[in-house]
Amino acid sequence: MSTSPRCALVCVGSELLRGKINTHASTVARLLASIGLALHEETTVSDELPELIDAIRHALRRHEVVLVTGGLGPTFDDLTREAASEACGRPLIFSEVLQRGIVQKFRRAHYRMPPENICQAYLLDGAKAIPNRNGTAPGQWLALRPVASPKSKVSRLGTLDFGRVLILLPGPPRELHPMLERSVIPRLRKTFPAPPQVEAHLHFVGVPESIVDHKIRPIIDRVSKKSSVQFTILAHLGLVDLDIFVTARSGVLARRTLQGIVGSIKRLLGDAFYGMNEDYPLERVVGGQLRRKRQTLAVAESCTGGLLASRLTEIAGSSDYFLSGFVTYSNAAKARDLGVSLDSLRRHGAVSRPVAVQMAQGVRQRTGATWGLGITGIAGPGGGTSKKPLGLVYVALASSKKTWCVECRFKGDRDAIRQRAVLAALDLLRRENAL
Amino acid sequence: MSTSPRCALVCVGSELLRGKINTHASTVARLLASIGLALHEETTVSDELPELIDAIRHALRRHEVVLVTGGLGPTFDDLTREAASEACGRPLIFSEVLQRGIVQKFRRAHYRMPPENICQAYLLDGAKAIPNRNGTAPGQWLALRPVASPKSKVSRLGTLDFGRVLILLPGPPRELHPMLERSVIPRLRKTFPAPPQVEAHLHFVGVPESIVDHKIRPIIDRVSKKSSVQFTILAHLGLVDLDIFVTARSGVLARRTLQGIVGSIKRLLGDAFYGMNEDYPLERVVGGQLRRKRQTLAVAESCTGGLLASRLTEIAGSSDYFLSGFVTYSNAAKARDLGVSLDSLRRHGAVSRPVAVQMAQGVRQRTGATWGLGITGIAGPGGGTSKKPLGLVYVALASSKKTWCVECRFKGDRDAIRQRAVLAALDLLRRENAL
Repeated sequence: MSTSPRCALVCVGSELLRGKINTHASTVARLLASIGLALHEETTVSDELPELIDAIRHALRRHEVVLVTGGLGPTFDDLTREAASEACGRPLIFSEVLQRGIVQKFRRAHYRMPPENICQAYLLDGAKAIPNRNGTAPGQWLALRPVASPKSKVSRLGTLDFGRVLILLPGPPRELHPMLERSVIPRLRKTFPAPPQVEAHLHFVGVPESIVDHKIRPIIDRVSKKSSVQFTILAHLGLVDLDIFVTARSGVLARRTLQGIVGSIKRLLGDAFYGMNEDYPLERVVGGQLRRKRQTLAVAESCTGGLLASRLTEIAGSSDYFLSGFVTYSNAAKARDLGVSLDSLRRHGAVSRPVAVQMAQGVRQRTGATWGLGITGIAGPGGGTSKKPLGLVYVALASSKKTWCVECRFKGDRDAIRQRAVLAALDLLRRENAL
Repeated sequence: MSTSPRCALVCVGSELLRGKINTHASTVARLLASIGLALHEETTVSDELPELIDAIRHALRRHEVVLVTGGLGPTFDDLTREAASEACGRPLIFSEVLQRGIVQKFRRAHYRMPPENICQAYLLDGAKAIPNRNGTAPGQWLALRPVASPKSKVSRLGTLDFGRVLILLPGPPRELHPMLERSVIPRLRKTFPAPPQVEAHLHFVGVPESIVDHKIRPIIDRVSKKSSVQFTILAHLGLVDLDIFVTARSGVLARRTLQGIVGSIKRLLGDAFYGMNEDYPLERVVGGQLRRKRQTLAVAESCTGGLLASRLTEIAGSSDYFLSGFVTYSNAAKARDLGVSLDSLRRHGAVSRPVAVQMAQGVRQRTGATWGLGITGIAGPGGGTSKKPLGLVYVALASSKKTWCVECRFKGDRDAIRQRAVLAALDLLRRENAL
């Protein structure tokens, strides 16, 4: 990998330095890894012209690929175009084609283009525009010559034949991500071809990141010296994603090595493994099971307040198996809409095993679905007691033959508890429906 | 702002460039803001000595406060001490006191100190140790003289009397956070007393970022020369957040300037302004209206599949006003649970004005809520036709006296359409309930 180009990311935006969590480096690192490239440095700078020029210039001196995100909007604090122009000594050239595209986007949205947006039609001299389907600012791809002077101590590339590339992209993830995936990554792959590489993305639920890490390390260390393995682990609220990249002298060897690694990991981690590659996220895997078996699902939610239904219906085509959802926040609604007995609510309270069970059974009966899921719990921040602490959640699953109920005790804030409760419900259905 | 010191953060750790999400900048920025300091730049570098030296040197040239996190562990890839020594030209000096402390920590944990850990007892010449209660690596605080040469273009501080400070801290959050809170932040507050600064965060809905910018520009330009104003604008899926920071010679002047700016902006942007500071997000503002008026709400969703209910119930205490939600994905559920007429469904289709209206009225009647909201639309990716294109959404609001219905045509993918539909519903209720 020593001959592969060095990549840097410059994130632009004062808001990223005022408490907002920046996920761009994570996204870019994963996408670069997928084509055998590594991210070597990330810098976040505020919307100030001198800083921005300095950051781009500094990155260009020591890296062959420099991605800049953010600062391409139409407003006074969007300075990336000007800074890039200054940093690499290329003037900005007005493009009529781009302007027409921007005017059209506004027209389609029934707005007149404000005069500020004209700045988005300027390209660095020699740059190509990168189309942006979800916003008005096009990206830019500018090929530069390699750092030339062999005397300068930063020109580590004097002997290599790489060119350099400066790439400008918008900051909002829904614009940035598709542009990276559709345009930038495929083009980088062509510009900097990597040795044969294959990859796998494994998805786990209900197991901590540290356990996954601990268990896979010996497997990766065992890999032969004819291939090189890179992996990244990303954990988020009870889910763990493991990306594995194998590079080898031949494609056959790379594939064989990867298969061996994936097989060993699946054996070691058992049914915490829920999917691979596009079998993701968990709600898609659960939906796939239901569709294959021609089953249907209805859900009844209290503390998760619609989050389970919302996650299930985020998947396109979920109307094939998802029938209905009831958000029964009040006791009255639980009794009226799901047939939960008022006696159970009084005796055991709304957050109890009997109520969860009756919610799952009630929603199943009412809708005629194959499966009913029920969730009731204490998401906080108030409402916890010593007997029923914050984070106590009951998740129930009903079929025509049997009802299951799981008691969970989650940590974290309201959002974390709700997210984990939804995962627990989806995972309960996944495990029982796999049998 | 010109007199307050510039702060930089250097995060060390290859794992931060392999897909892990880095939250250090967020933590540090918030803590610095609490003492009137701003984070000006963040850089993440891998565990390579030349990169690390370069990053620290580069940060020290342009900032008065440089925090470095990570790379203080005992292993071969922990290189922050060496890099800092090289970057600021101070040798590392062995401290017997520190060594004794580290040995004791191991003894208390019933371990013998491994020989590698001896490196943690070295301090930069002139540095003071920062105690670490949750780990073996002490932090370091090194006061340096201001950049001297008035000729160098980076010595912006030549005329100011600030010193510079280099602070080394461990990377794991459970070591880093208490060290920041207990030692570093209090000490920075003493070293750099801040000029009076005040801030406001304004939130808008249903107006594009460029329109907000266009309208506020004259207001920014009008501000007096006795105070300095900074703005950031952040747009996301139909929402715009505007942050305003005012620094002035006195707190009174800063507050007065800020009040003037906020008043002008509110007047100019009318009811697109929905909240300020903690009156955020939109669902909290809508909830606040309902609570103040002792009103209740129930919702009926089709294409948004529970997302509206989920967003409403994300707010703690929403059970005070949110009664129930129905996710009626199928026509059968719309008829059975909300009383939508089968005739309307047949004649106009599920995505139509009459069905949205009947959903809102039906859920209101069924639950006895003050307000009923109904959403039906085509979120895609399939299902669009020339007459009913992808992104067509009807949002209806019913009270005891009147029913409103809005036809929307949203752009973007399934997620964007669902998110915008939820916003449209919340905003319809907010505007009607404000009258």
